[in-house]
Amino acid sequence: MTAVPADAIIRIDAVTICGTDLHILRGDVPEVAPGRILGHEAVGTVVATGPAVAAWRPGDRVLVSCISACGCCRYCRSGVFGQCLGGGGWILGHLIDGTQAEYVRVPFADTSLYPVPENVPDRAALMLADILPTAYEVGVRNGAVRPGDTVVIVGAGPIGLASVTTARLFTPNHIVAVDPAALRRDAAKMMGADVTADTAEEAGTAVAELTGGLGADVAIEAVGVSATFELCARLVRPGGRVANVGVHGGPATLRLERLWSRNVTITTGLVDTSSTPDLMRMVAAGRMDTSAFVTHDFPLSEMEAAYRTFTDAATTGALKIAAFRDALAA
Amino acid sequence: MTAVPADAIIRIDAVTICGTDLHILRGDVPEVAPGRILGHEAVGTVVATGPAVAAWRPGDRVLVSCISACGCCRYCRSGVFGQCLGGGGWILGHLIDGTQAEYVRVPFADTSLYPVPENVPDRAALMLADILPTAYEVGVRNGAVRPGDTVVIVGAGPIGLASVTTARLFTPNHIVAVDPAALRRDAAKMMGADVTADTAEEAGTAVAELTGGLGADVAIEAVGVSATFELCARLVRPGGRVANVGVHGGPATLRLERLWSRNVTITTGLVDTSSTPDLMRMVAAGRMDTSAFVTHDFPLSEMEAAYRTFTDAATTGALKIAAFRDALAA
Amino acid sequence: MTAVPADAIIRIDAVTICGTDLHILRGDVPEVAPGRILGHEAVGTVVATGPAVAAWRPGDRVLVSCISACGCCRYCRSGVFGQCLGGGGWILGHLIDGTQAEYVRVPFADTSLYPVPENVPDRAALMLADILPTAYEVGVRNGAVRPGDTVVIVGAGPIGLASVTTARLFTPNHIVAVDPAALRRDAAKMMGADVTADTAEEAGTAVAELTGGLGADVAIEAVGVSATFELCARLVRPGGRVANVGVHGGPATLRLERLWSRNVTITTGLVDTSSTPDLMRMVAAGRMDTSAFVTHDFPLSEMEAAYRTFTDAATTGALKIAAFRDALAA
Amino acid sequence: MTAVPADAIIRIDAVTICGTDLHILRGDVPEVAPGRILGHEAVGTVVATGPAVAAWRPGDRVLVSCISACGCCRYCRSGVFGQCLGGGGWILGHLIDGTQAEYVRVPFADTSLYPVPENVPDRAALMLADILPTAYEVGVRNGAVRPGDTVVIVGAGPIGLASVTTARLFTPNHIVAVDPAALRRDAAKMMGADVTADTAEEAGTAVAELTGGLGADVAIEAVGVSATFELCARLVRPGGRVANVGVHGGPATLRLERLWSRNVTITTGLVDTSSTPDLMRMVAAGRMDTSAFVTHDFPLSEMEAAYRTFTDAATTGALKIAAFRDALAA
Repeated sequence: MTAVPADAIIRIDAVTICGTDLHILRGDVPEVAPGRILGHEAVGTVVATGPAVAAWRPGDRVLVSCISACGCCRYCRSGVFGQCLGGGGWILGHLIDGTQAEYVRVPFADTSLYPVPENVPDRAALMLADILPTAYEVGVRNGAVRPGDTVVIVGAGPIGLASVTTARLFTPNHIVAVDPAALRRDAAKMMGADVTADTAEEAGTAVAELTGGLGADVAIEAVGVSATFELCARLVRPGGRVANVGVHGGPATLRLERLWSRNVTITTGLVDTSSTPDLMRMVAAGRMDTSAFVTHDFPLSEMEAAYRTFTDAATTGALKIAAFRDALAA
Repeated sequence: MTAVPADAIIRIDAVTICGTDLHILRGDVPEVAPGRILGHEAVGTVVATGPAVAAWRPGDRVLVSCISACGCCRYCRSGVFGQCLGGGGWILGHLIDGTQAEYVRVPFADTSLYPVPENVPDRAALMLADILPTAYEVGVRNGAVRPGDTVVIVGAGPIGLASVTTARLFTPNHIVAVDPAALRRDAAKMMGADVTADTAEEAGTAVAELTGGLGADVAIEAVGVSATFELCARLVRPGGRVANVGVHGGPATLRLERLWSRNVTITTGLVDTSSTPDLMRMVAAGRMDTSAFVTHDFPLSEMEAAYRTFTDAATTGALKIAAFRDALAA
Repeated sequence: MTAVPADAIIRIDAVTICGTDLHILRGDVPEVAPGRILGHEAVGTVVATGPAVAAWRPGDRVLVSCISACGCCRYCRSGVFGQCLGGGGWILGHLIDGTQAEYVRVPFADTSLYPVPENVPDRAALMLADILPTAYEVGVRNGAVRPGDTVVIVGAGPIGLASVTTARLFTPNHIVAVDPAALRRDAAKMMGADVTADTAEEAGTAVAELTGGLGADVAIEAVGVSATFELCARLVRPGGRVANVGVHGGPATLRLERLWSRNVTITTGLVDTSSTPDLMRMVAAGRMDTSAFVTHDFPLSEMEAAYRTFTDAATTGALKIAAFRDALAA
Repeated sequence: MTAVPADAIIRIDAVTICGTDLHILRGDVPEVAPGRILGHEAVGTVVATGPAVAAWRPGDRVLVSCISACGCCRYCRSGVFGQCLGGGGWILGHLIDGTQAEYVRVPFADTSLYPVPENVPDRAALMLADILPTAYEVGVRNGAVRPGDTVVIVGAGPIGLASVTTARLFTPNHIVAVDPAALRRDAAKMMGADVTADTAEEAGTAVAELTGGLGADVAIEAVGVSATFELCARLVRPGGRVANVGVHGGPATLRLERLWSRNVTITTGLVDTSSTPDLMRMVAAGRMDTSAFVTHDFPLSEMEAAYRTFTDAATTGALKIAAFRDALAA
């Protein structure tokens, strides 16, 4: 395997699995070709670089992120890397081979890899490849969470929990996490939600109590089905914000007859990973502990067991798994 | 008729009819009590003020606006008067008697009336009672129109045309106005749209041509039905903004399976009239000609004829009518 | 004492002294008339209201804030109450008699008083009359502190410490507090600064180390002399922000030959107290402990001793004093 | 001359001279090495590209801009190319040879050149290499010019006039241009200023009249000396914005004793040219006529005469000169 001009070859040191990978395996993402190597999250070591690569040298420890960026197009020029028109965007483990392997080829290496500070362990850095920047950019920043806010987060899987973690950076008054699974509600509590709700009705009651009946300042959708989106639109106060983070396979109903006059802002988005360096600095400075997302460790050679544990999260309690090249060093 | 503490009594000098008034007459707004005097737009003269009114004196020439503001609640404190929790918001011609009369009682007079400069005629000022601030705040500013943008405005009735007029304040590259009525497309051209489209398909083709297939930067919904909202969501580019201005009686379908990853921002809103003083200054300085919206004049005594002309806009070509107390002075 | 239309009479339950009061006593604020009752911060109980007052009734427990707002002028309409053109702004203890008394008359009562939740004690609420909203609005929000930032706060008196407290709401990576007084540096550490510096040189070294030589993201000036302002402008990185909070009696030198190309934003401001209700909610919810600012208690009858303790802060270690009507109940 | 990896070699078709070039000739910019080829503005044709260049091919017609961007550093990742930490920024005609030559080598070609649409002539495109984006980004957008504003622009040289032109994109109510030279005041009027002033005093009177004594919403400094900066700070209203565009060789006095309480925002900045593609689209669509800035044409072979005409602007009335490779084709 040799490098082409702007590519780098990375040896995988640690890798994780995304809910999206399970969707692909189920056939929900038809543009993924059979035989494609999955995975768009990893920490690794540069082993070779193409002649156009200026930023990296063999031996550099890097984060391989879910988004690649050409660095030149209209969107990349303004930091909106997720919408790259120059061949980047979400391509790893999707349109080209991904990170669940011993090596991965990363295009646009200068603008698509991130240095990992020495004091940040692989398991902590790994969470910055997708879930933390996604929750932070698409959930918390699009939702414009502010100090004193009441924030509802619907869905307490990895992305919902990462939304809890990153919403706390802005010191909201209340974080209400909504999930039918008791294990996940417990995880949400542990990560900083102060209220949890089991059902939509319970969520409505909790938000009404916390806000004197007005509604939540921000609702973050972290599931990806119509019912949870519609719940978010219902829970938000006049002037509030609904930030959709979930990956949707079908439409939702937008109750414009109720919403048209309520000054509601609804956002959608793919992560840009523009915040990744900031988040990395925060992890390095001890401002966020992202290691807690990793509930199960595997050696890279037991990736199939890792998939089983992750798929069966309801019984294993898995949030994120991590598979390490050198299991002893993890 | 005597004034209560914070109220003012205004003699109506000029009044207009809103599309919403027609909805009320059809029974679409059930909270409007039978016998209610309609109208939430007028220019008039203060004749009496309650003891708590500090800003106005008999003889002052004022704009009566669609939104009343208590001035004290959480929303009023931040200029979001349309969401007033203290008894204001849209109440005139809705929950209390309105402006289509010889006199109107305006509550919260200090914070709900606007001075009209001498050089601004009644017909020009009248357009600032609802359609201009609505189009500007809820359409153009929520949509964040910027120099160089391609803006699609779906619906070329009074609100759509006011969106054309106020979008031009930001010098977009292209304004595409979409309306099935030829008369309204002509009006849109006259007011500054450079492209018009008859159908959704034509609109799609026009936007694609102007933007190299990328989509519009901003789409403004100025009709209030699901099909036009969905058209807006379809026409907008990744990272674009859909600003809903239309009053909706039913839900729309939100194609989240397409939109979730496209960084789209959707806003809804009731006007705050926070921009009314700015718009008034612009009209006074000759930066906007709002008189052109008034296509038909009536004396106040012929309000029923005015309603017929406005209701039958398809044949009369009416945009906005104006009825004047003193028809000679208009 | 009887109430005029929009005024309320408040019985003072707790009051504090501001650094500005000391300036007035020294004669630095010449517009203050001899014999004026000082004080612009208090918690009290409404005893009477004028006929135009709608929001308050005798017995209501309220915060009397440093800023009064007419609620109607151009600035008040957009929440910029500090710049009120209608007779408000900073008037209490400045242009009219203030709060260091048994009773105070508060004009524009509907828009200038704030309810105090039952679970917020007087000493905690009192800090929201000036220092907390000033630090939050003029320092932290004007400075646009963001998660991961390195923030320098020059001056660790009450306003500087309140800046430390409210900057933490946005989870910066580092807060560097600069003050020559060891007691105040200790207080800054206790309130959440992770680095302190004694001198300008030390501050420069600390910021350079924390930021790889780039400079601070935000510098907050909380002293009010030219040297500290100039230090802030020197410490900030390209693209950074300098938020001036200090009250200045003379000019500073702006090194435009260095700054012109560095994308620096400098802000000044008087507090609007637009954030007071948000801050009150945060205190009520336990998100901020503001009681710690009060280092010394007095009965209202010993106000002169309170002044001595506050004036001699260097030896008494006073941050804020509180004087209570009913010292037993405090 | 051969290309290195990320460089392109451009044949110069049209070039202009910047006021900064005159400063360099006078010795005011000591880091410019003797013998350096000046010039950071040109339109040209790609003749060769290094192996790492992906965006350009020989024959492409491009704008060479004053700012080069590495595309990878912290600042470039967020569109702040002027502060590039990776070897870019303002380097052409400054740290490396520039555009006043037959050919120029442009580093980071993928992220530092812009396509020129066929219908935009060289003379119009040339104005987008520096003055238009500088005025737009650093003056008008930093100053946050809004519809209805009163904008003062101090200095009516090329940058000041470009500020007039780009301020108009936001339809301010009034643009007051201040310059002691009658020729430049006339040019400002022609380009859209509605009021001009000769002296600081006259400017103060004009602004006071237009704003009822309140002050300008925005003041743009386009000269680069302390007196004009201080004038801007004096002319701005409470809550207003001062955008410095001028290149300063010395400090200014900041009257904090007056400004501390007035909610003023002061910005400085080097252009990023992040707006260049937007501006190019506007010129192509006929929304801005930038050709009018070019008052004098020369063949490239008579560059010294061009310099004389530009240097002696007071008598020649030169705004911008343009020198063309093929004078007949211009």
